[in-house]
Amino acid sequence: MNNFIDILNNKIRIVDEKLNEYMQSLNGIPDKLLSAMRYSVTAGGKRLRPILLLSSNHLFQQENISAWNFAIAIELIHTYSLIHDDLPCMDNDDYRRGKLTNHKVYGENIAVLAGDALLNLSIELMLSTVKSKNYFKEGVDAMNYIYENVGSKGMIAGQCADIESENNNSLTETHLEYIQQNKTAKLINASFVSGGILAGAGLKDLQLLYGYSNSLGLAFQIMDDILDITGDKNKLGKTTGKDLANNKLTYPSIYGIEKSKKIALENVANAKEYISSINKDTSFLCDLADFIVDREI
Amino acid sequence: MNNFIDILNNKIRIVDEKLNEYMQSLNGIPDKLLSAMRYSVTAGGKRLRPILLLSSNHLFQQENISAWNFAIAIELIHTYSLIHDDLPCMDNDDYRRGKLTNHKVYGENIAVLAGDALLNLSIELMLSTVKSKNYFKEGVDAMNYIYENVGSKGMIAGQCADIESENNNSLTETHLEYIQQNKTAKLINASFVSGGILAGAGLKDLQLLYGYSNSLGLAFQIMDDILDITGDKNKLGKTTGKDLANNKLTYPSIYGIEKSKKIALENVANAKEYISSINKDTSFLCDLADFIVDREI
Repeated sequence: MNNFIDILNNKIRIVDEKLNEYMQSLNGIPDKLLSAMRYSVTAGGKRLRPILLLSSNHLFQQENISAWNFAIAIELIHTYSLIHDDLPCMDNDDYRRGKLTNHKVYGENIAVLAGDALLNLSIELMLSTVKSKNYFKEGVDAMNYIYENVGSKGMIAGQCADIESENNNSLTETHLEYIQQNKTAKLINASFVSGGILAGAGLKDLQLLYGYSNSLGLAFQIMDDILDITGDKNKLGKTTGKDLANNKLTYPSIYGIEKSKKIALENVANAKEYISSINKDTSFLCDLADFIVDREI
Repeated sequence: MNNFIDILNNKIRIVDEKLNEYMQSLNGIPDKLLSAMRYSVTAGGKRLRPILLLSSNHLFQQENISAWNFAIAIELIHTYSLIHDDLPCMDNDDYRRGKLTNHKVYGENIAVLAGDALLNLSIELMLSTVKSKNYFKEGVDAMNYIYENVGSKGMIAGQCADIESENNNSLTETHLEYIQQNKTAKLINASFVSGGILAGAGLKDLQLLYGYSNSLGLAFQIMDDILDITGDKNKLGKTTGKDLANNKLTYPSIYGIEKSKKIALENVANAKEYISSINKDTSFLCDLADFIVDREI
């Protein structure tokens, strides 16, 4: 696992560098808005989604600049969703990744606009890549897959259901699965599958990419819920105990911690089975699945 | 002009029907979120942007379904921007198009998500259209043009500068022009030019489309500022006198009403000159430019 951690940290470092470089390259944007956009994008994090996109892409083709731009764009989408989720009218969080949340630094109005701007920028970056590389078919297919998964039938639907679950004790496992599937798993899934689409992977392989990342996404969200109870605030970089305080529907709130961990481990086993069916070197991806349930961050 | 009003109202009615039809066709979205999205999209309005997109498209080709989907998508973008602009942390408006604003009906959290969802839906609709019609080149070019104009170097930049202009008396004409250009003119411009791009119009014609819609957009925003002072709240369907109350930088605040009206008329004259240079029937577009400064709504 130590070797894996080194490899992972190296990947995170490279993604951070590319993100910094990209955010520095932006111009023509009002100072305060640009500063707010840069603040949250370069605030660190596990960079799981760009790493997943690049990893699946790399299974089927050599590293290419288009996939890198899509990886950056995926992190822009993730960051926009975090900025809006943290707003006072939403989850009302003061800390994220160990730093003050965007609206605490820049004000609510700029935080709303910075989120909007990052979603829009993700589209701009992917479109200009698709256009400049004459990469129409794969590029449009990948974009289509991504935005269907992060919109009102995906990530936004999950956030909406999550908000509505607060203080509602009549909700069941079905609601919980809907929330976790949409709020977290779909973006993780979109990251990994779109990397394959960009590489021109066939339908059978895309189905295996789907199976891996969907299970990984569910395990990831279950562990997130567990860490909100058992985790170290300083290591996580965000306030813990918030789900309980807000009476939120989570895996631990329904199943308790032990059984939740067991469900997460089952999902990890499923993920590894899917990805191992692809006839490529998938050792990093198997280790990554194990890491998801072993992590403290 | 009466005949023009009939033609315009007929166009508005058809756009309204198509928007209603599209919003009704959506499914798989959480009830409250979908209800909030439908509420603002079907709340009426002048439908200027879709009408502009369809009009420029129609100059160069027969009516086509792809342009219709782009016209709907443009109105989704416009509606998302209105929902977010009306939020308490932004312009804090209670009324829009004669109805309560989105957050007054659905709450701030759903209003933020409904705005996000509409921006995301606009890209989903355009991507699926481009994909299903094998319309890659023109479709990607049009999308690229649209999202560059509504992002952090366009519409969002304008809203940001507008917020920052409040209670700042050191600002000048340059700031005002930046705000009006970005906040309003760029989306109007993107609507009109993208209609031409979709129709495969040549560079020279696209430049004329740009000239017309840029001048039209500026005239439109100047009249909006004037109507905020002289307009009838009931006819406009929104609170008036807000710019003055918020000490906002507007054309009337710098030049007074008379000179502002004169600048608007100059822009209308420019717009008509540009569009008349295209060797097509542009009578509706010339009348539309006149209407922009004669309107009470």
